[in-house]
Amino acid sequence: MQAAARAIAYAHDHQSKSLQSLQDFLRIPSISTLPEHEKDIQRAAQWAADRLKDLGFEKVQVVPTARHPVVLGQRTCDRPSAPTVLVYGHYDVQPVDPLDEWQSPPFEPTIRGENLYARGASDMKAQIVAFFSALEALAQTEGIPVNMKIMLEGEEEIGSPSLQAFLQDHRQELACDFCLNTDASILGPDTPALTYALRGLAYFEIHVYGPRSDLHSGLFGGVVDNPANVLSRLLGNMIDQNGRITLPGFYDPVRPLSPEERRALARLPQDENWWKERAGVERLGGEEGYTSTERATARPTLDVNGLYSGFIGQGSKTVLPARAMAKISMRLVPDQTPEQVKESLRQYLEENCPPTVRWELKDLTGCLPGMIDIQSAPVLAAKRALQSVWGVEPFFSRQGGSVPVVGMIQDLLGVQSLMLGFGLPDDNLHAPNEKQHLPTFYRGIDTYIHFLNAVAEGT
Amino acid sequence: MQAAARAIAYAHDHQSKSLQSLQDFLRIPSISTLPEHEKDIQRAAQWAADRLKDLGFEKVQVVPTARHPVVLGQRTCDRPSAPTVLVYGHYDVQPVDPLDEWQSPPFEPTIRGENLYARGASDMKAQIVAFFSALEALAQTEGIPVNMKIMLEGEEEIGSPSLQAFLQDHRQELACDFCLNTDASILGPDTPALTYALRGLAYFEIHVYGPRSDLHSGLFGGVVDNPANVLSRLLGNMIDQNGRITLPGFYDPVRPLSPEERRALARLPQDENWWKERAGVERLGGEEGYTSTERATARPTLDVNGLYSGFIGQGSKTVLPARAMAKISMRLVPDQTPEQVKESLRQYLEENCPPTVRWELKDLTGCLPGMIDIQSAPVLAAKRALQSVWGVEPFFSRQGGSVPVVGMIQDLLGVQSLMLGFGLPDDNLHAPNEKQHLPTFYRGIDTYIHFLNAVAEGT
Repeated sequence: MQAAARAIAYAHDHQSKSLQSLQDFLRIPSISTLPEHEKDIQRAAQWAADRLKDLGFEKVQVVPTARHPVVLGQRTCDRPSAPTVLVYGHYDVQPVDPLDEWQSPPFEPTIRGENLYARGASDMKAQIVAFFSALEALAQTEGIPVNMKIMLEGEEEIGSPSLQAFLQDHRQELACDFCLNTDASILGPDTPALTYALRGLAYFEIHVYGPRSDLHSGLFGGVVDNPANVLSRLLGNMIDQNGRITLPGFYDPVRPLSPEERRALARLPQDENWWKERAGVERLGGEEGYTSTERATARPTLDVNGLYSGFIGQGSKTVLPARAMAKISMRLVPDQTPEQVKESLRQYLEENCPPTVRWELKDLTGCLPGMIDIQSAPVLAAKRALQSVWGVEPFFSRQGGSVPVVGMIQDLLGVQSLMLGFGLPDDNLHAPNEKQHLPTFYRGIDTYIHFLNAVAEGT
Repeated sequence: MQAAARAIAYAHDHQSKSLQSLQDFLRIPSISTLPEHEKDIQRAAQWAADRLKDLGFEKVQVVPTARHPVVLGQRTCDRPSAPTVLVYGHYDVQPVDPLDEWQSPPFEPTIRGENLYARGASDMKAQIVAFFSALEALAQTEGIPVNMKIMLEGEEEIGSPSLQAFLQDHRQELACDFCLNTDASILGPDTPALTYALRGLAYFEIHVYGPRSDLHSGLFGGVVDNPANVLSRLLGNMIDQNGRITLPGFYDPVRPLSPEERRALARLPQDENWWKERAGVERLGGEEGYTSTERATARPTLDVNGLYSGFIGQGSKTVLPARAMAKISMRLVPDQTPEQVKESLRQYLEENCPPTVRWELKDLTGCLPGMIDIQSAPVLAAKRALQSVWGVEPFFSRQGGSVPVVGMIQDLLGVQSLMLGFGLPDDNLHAPNEKQHLPTFYRGIDTYIHFLNAVAEGT
């Protein structure tokens, strides 16, 4: 595999350039959920578009949407018979609070040990830059052996609200043989892996309204139902003592795990201690009757993501609050849908909220769970590429997180997505001190080179 | 009663001066819980001290404490045999959030209809100014007929943390026959009342700690117990379906209501609709087996005053938060104590918090419930004064709120406190659009004049 060898050598010689490029990208605070970062979102999109132009992409566009733009690029290879790969990524990042828990500023990329710390390092600017570096290495040596289409969105961290319409509008332009989704991780620095299933998401706000305005808890406590007490009770009873979610009909569409799949998941190098260490907890929690890996990747969940009511400043305000709010989200598994769990939640609130207060349910975002055929050609190419770089057979795993675009691409473009990216489970995604493991980043570049060659060769 | 008639006439002629004085006092944003209002606290104390000097008080001091100063004043009357009355009040006020719900700025006193709107109007600057106006009317006519001691603290709204030590240090100076506590209300513009019992208070923060730092709820949801879910469950189960508090031993020291007392409370003009209207709710809540008035004034409570966890900004952050916090407070009735209910709460947390998270309990403030002898001379003097002004017999009621100083004064000075003040139940205490009903304010001035005369005459 001469082509790969020359491109790999080029990549190895230019690792510091790749790192430099990643650091430049990470300095742009492209937080998609906060309106005050609008300009940074634009800068990040333009940065990625400029890189694609450098790489010889023919049609590079920063396409506006209702909120944040999509970066599109296209590059045709010499062989007309070559397959067409659509690469998906996102250039937006999560907010950074609590800021005071960061050891170095989130948008000043800082190397400590083998890691580069910055918001968006692992999720997922390093994956985009790794793929760009692989393309550069191929372009500068043997040539890029497949037709490339690249689509980078700026709304992944807020649930990709514009993407569905965008895919509908650009169906023809995005036609491809399959999608390579680079928003992914492996299991550990020495345990390469491919993800064949993703959990879906349904994210809600629940508001509970009580008295017209805040009341004195001394004068009215005892005779007026407190929205914060009521909300706590509603949330608290959504999960029972065995870790089972109590919303009516919630589990009805859940595909049971087959004994074969449970055996395969049990082979993953993820025992209880592995999960404890990565989560930073002394004891794990969750649903009875399932292993830690199953709980975290193959079973649905219900988490409170935010809670607010009353007075949360310093001191003791004796207020009976007029309202209380919770953000809650559920991770879904096949064949659950955001609509179905919303109905479960609605029914639960209707049955359990006392008539002394009023509730309101808002759905903020959601996406379907996804599963990919593990015997497909792209999966086999990726398996071969990972084995070439790591020298060991990769694991096949499910992923607990959600990638809404996977379901949308399957729906609208009619192709499956392969998840291949080089984050690690302890990268502090969405949390303070997010990082990218640099040796894994460099191996990622090599893997993408091997992968594109394997795809071109038809494995 | 010639003396009262002349003083009353003076008070009536000078109502606009009293109103002006109240407005000046209300313009000082003396919020005791927020460190940024330190200077305003000092200004409010100095304002009150200057008024006492104007009224001919001999010893006027602004005495520093660990946090906010106490204003002290003393005025000896001509008759050496006259009783000595200690008057208690507080010049500090509650915070103003949510600010956007105020119809006029909280520190720009604004008259709409018969009411004056401002933070601290009813609680309790109007009561202080009404008493000052009564003193002025007496001083300018017949003379003040009793020995006066005045003590105004600046920490009532944060639980009077310095007052215990202050009372201990100033025991001799504050010696008196009884205490007149002006931090009080009547039942309605046409229903004068005297309060014979107050609820106590115990205010806590509960913190629940989970993973070392915030986690991605997709990657770890299902396998890591979520502190916000756990806190919700803990809070939600503290009150059962019948509105009973479930903390072990919580009700053990509660004095049952006698049939006589229940009959007396039932005579109060406070039916369910009265409570609904004042609270601004369509349905009342609370403990089964008790009337609304009993629930609000004679039974203990547990209210969530503040809730915080995770991401509460705009949008959908998929975070599994590292911690969650609740502020909760309980209103206590005889013979509960803050220590006893803290032990109940501690035991509850110990028994119910799962070992997957860590909890911490902080007590912020607390005070004993109080009850006053309704056959004592000051109570009878107040009854007579109220009847003189309103022309009807006043009601005797319990109050749901807490006045920590009442228990402390009983403990340290050995005297009972009489609650006599002229707020109304719909004054929006501790809430946006706090107000003072001005006709009641003016009647309050008259009542204090009659009261001091009645006290001097030994009823």
